[in-house]
Amino acid sequence: MTENYNITKYADIVRNTTPLVHSITNYVTVNDCANVLLACGASPIMADDENEVCEITSICSALNINIGTLNKRTVASMLKAGKMSAKLGHPVVLDPVGAGASRLRTDTALEIIKTVRLSVIKGNISEIMTLLDGSGQTSGVDSSVSDAITEENLDEKIKIAKILANKNQCVIAVTGAIDIVTDGDKTYVIRNGHHIMSNITGTGCMLSAVTAAYCAVAKLDCQTDAVACAVAMMGVCGELAWEKVKDVRGGTGRFRVALIDEISLITSEKLEKVAKIEKK
Amino acid sequence: MTENYNITKYADIVRNTTPLVHSITNYVTVNDCANVLLACGASPIMADDENEVCEITSICSALNINIGTLNKRTVASMLKAGKMSAKLGHPVVLDPVGAGASRLRTDTALEIIKTVRLSVIKGNISEIMTLLDGSGQTSGVDSSVSDAITEENLDEKIKIAKILANKNQCVIAVTGAIDIVTDGDKTYVIRNGHHIMSNITGTGCMLSAVTAAYCAVAKLDCQTDAVACAVAMMGVCGELAWEKVKDVRGGTGRFRVALIDEISLITSEKLEKVAKIEKK
Amino acid sequence: MTENYNITKYADIVRNTTPLVHSITNYVTVNDCANVLLACGASPIMADDENEVCEITSICSALNINIGTLNKRTVASMLKAGKMSAKLGHPVVLDPVGAGASRLRTDTALEIIKTVRLSVIKGNISEIMTLLDGSGQTSGVDSSVSDAITEENLDEKIKIAKILANKNQCVIAVTGAIDIVTDGDKTYVIRNGHHIMSNITGTGCMLSAVTAAYCAVAKLDCQTDAVACAVAMMGVCGELAWEKVKDVRGGTGRFRVALIDEISLITSEKLEKVAKIEKK
Repeated sequence: MTENYNITKYADIVRNTTPLVHSITNYVTVNDCANVLLACGASPIMADDENEVCEITSICSALNINIGTLNKRTVASMLKAGKMSAKLGHPVVLDPVGAGASRLRTDTALEIIKTVRLSVIKGNISEIMTLLDGSGQTSGVDSSVSDAITEENLDEKIKIAKILANKNQCVIAVTGAIDIVTDGDKTYVIRNGHHIMSNITGTGCMLSAVTAAYCAVAKLDCQTDAVACAVAMMGVCGELAWEKVKDVRGGTGRFRVALIDEISLITSEKLEKVAKIEKK
Repeated sequence: MTENYNITKYADIVRNTTPLVHSITNYVTVNDCANVLLACGASPIMADDENEVCEITSICSALNINIGTLNKRTVASMLKAGKMSAKLGHPVVLDPVGAGASRLRTDTALEIIKTVRLSVIKGNISEIMTLLDGSGQTSGVDSSVSDAITEENLDEKIKIAKILANKNQCVIAVTGAIDIVTDGDKTYVIRNGHHIMSNITGTGCMLSAVTAAYCAVAKLDCQTDAVACAVAMMGVCGELAWEKVKDVRGGTGRFRVALIDEISLITSEKLEKVAKIEKK
Repeated sequence: MTENYNITKYADIVRNTTPLVHSITNYVTVNDCANVLLACGASPIMADDENEVCEITSICSALNINIGTLNKRTVASMLKAGKMSAKLGHPVVLDPVGAGASRLRTDTALEIIKTVRLSVIKGNISEIMTLLDGSGQTSGVDSSVSDAITEENLDEKIKIAKILANKNQCVIAVTGAIDIVTDGDKTYVIRNGHHIMSNITGTGCMLSAVTAAYCAVAKLDCQTDAVACAVAMMGVCGELAWEKVKDVRGGTGRFRVALIDEISLITSEKLEKVAKIEKK
């Protein structure tokens, strides 16, 4: 339990310190990202013009880069903000949405990895495999079924995540039915969440935003724990939200509202009780 | 009933086959479009950079073009993606939002129609009339009252839709209190929906996205049925959502959530029972 | 009560006349702005391409400019639309989101103020102070704690708002725990709202959009009253929404839905009863 508390404590710390998080993200789920950042206790700012991203990121505590609807203009801003944020020692999270689905996405993700000192890369297994060696079977912005993480192939997927973590000296979070968080050395396997989460848009983007907030309040040598906390928090809130929606025979509209509700109500204490975090 | 089933079956087919749908759409309702695509059983991807739209549309089964917040950059992407998608034989749906409200919108819609082999054009009557001969009284992005489809002028409006369908050899869906779907030959009149649907933003955009998904799973000679199914589905879910919201004296916030709920729960069987589709 | 009615009447007038409101706004909360405009009885249109904003704004009754995610392309459109709208005598509302957080935001807000004849500037106290003399302590897009309006410093903050109002000959709305609306001569202090409103994104942006709608239906010499009505309406609906959410132990997801519900249901009569508008 103590181990679990050391991880889950970041939920309360964010709520008590309200870190300001800069997101350069896609216009599909940007509203959800802002609302979820507020719900978890952080403060969001979205800004993507090349002429202000360095100033904006300087007053923030972390940067969240999401390439979900990237374009030439915003890629330039991502690179500028990323370099500035890393230079200031702020955590930078990359969500390589759809890497593998187009050359532009793969190339952009790889360029960001190459030029920005990242703290975290969070993706589904197809995106992560694409970043490692181009072998991911990315089907749109969702992971392909053949790539899915299962209990059977878990060790193999952990190995892949570790290689990418060591290669880029950052934390890798691989999300799926089972989630993996690793810095190449320490590894957590998280078994929370509910499959309905993939029936609403943006749960992955929300997690990246929250991850940036949690990393913002964690010491440099505790970033892996902060990422595990964010991953577990999203999964746990997904479970709690489903419990509430299920009772009223609701659908995905109501589930999405309930998910944000739960994120706005979660505490480290509750999280500690429900989180299924296994240290490997 | 058999006739009705032949139309309503697409609701289940989409849910069982999860077609990937590429949308180049406006940033006002893009999140709703993504959530509604997921709710109806499809998988959404939004991408609008000129350098990736051809690749992205190639891995999808249909393309949804919506000019709601068009700009120079995205219009180029719409044209590129549209041509590629049509070339691959994928259904392409155009939602000419606000055609008639500005020259840019009218010209862009007409250019897309001229250069892209469309499967479906879906608009309100003002937009449709603008595309035909510039006679629509477009008031902003909503249809003008003087243009509204009523039982009295229905035959006249069907005639207009048929002319546009024949001219462009595609399916025309005209939405309003009464909906018309025609390919110039076969015509459906659909009397579902609730007027509160026009009190939330995006029901039209959601329908275009869903239409692309339904067309993606229909054979070439069944596109008209698939469009009618999508139109009926939105109307029916609007009715069902209103029933639930009414009971709790809710407003438009709750209605919007309930609408997505119903779309995520609808089946062909239920749709068949509630849909009011008349073949003309 | 009569005084209060003269202010709160705009809620019903908007609902009875459905003014068309043009917004050039940020992509974070644009969907909320559209839904709230519809909820309050207005009709929204979003358009930001330089080649159509003059036409679009000409068919509208008011313009809402929000710099929340400004970029080079949209700033040009804001200036063009702003000039055209003012030239036509339409109310133009500016929401200088994040002025003070980056030079680009401050400069853009100041340029709009200089070149466009504004009817209303609505901001938090940090943004307003930045516009006056660069002294605001803008922390991201939210007001800094040290700047907060309290009963103790209220007179001082009113003084600041009056100076800006007189300088720009427009109405200034300063939002916070206590809201100030002044045209330099007539001043209203509004004590409605609930602190949970700052835990969802977009309540400020929604207010700017609604303000444009309310100003659209008010005579030139009643713009201050219309702004006070919009500010009170948002606060009152926030209170009513919280009452409903509280009963079901909801979080911020549900609160956001309830807020839009209340806006869609509010009448001048109800508003008159709950609004706490003090004339200074």
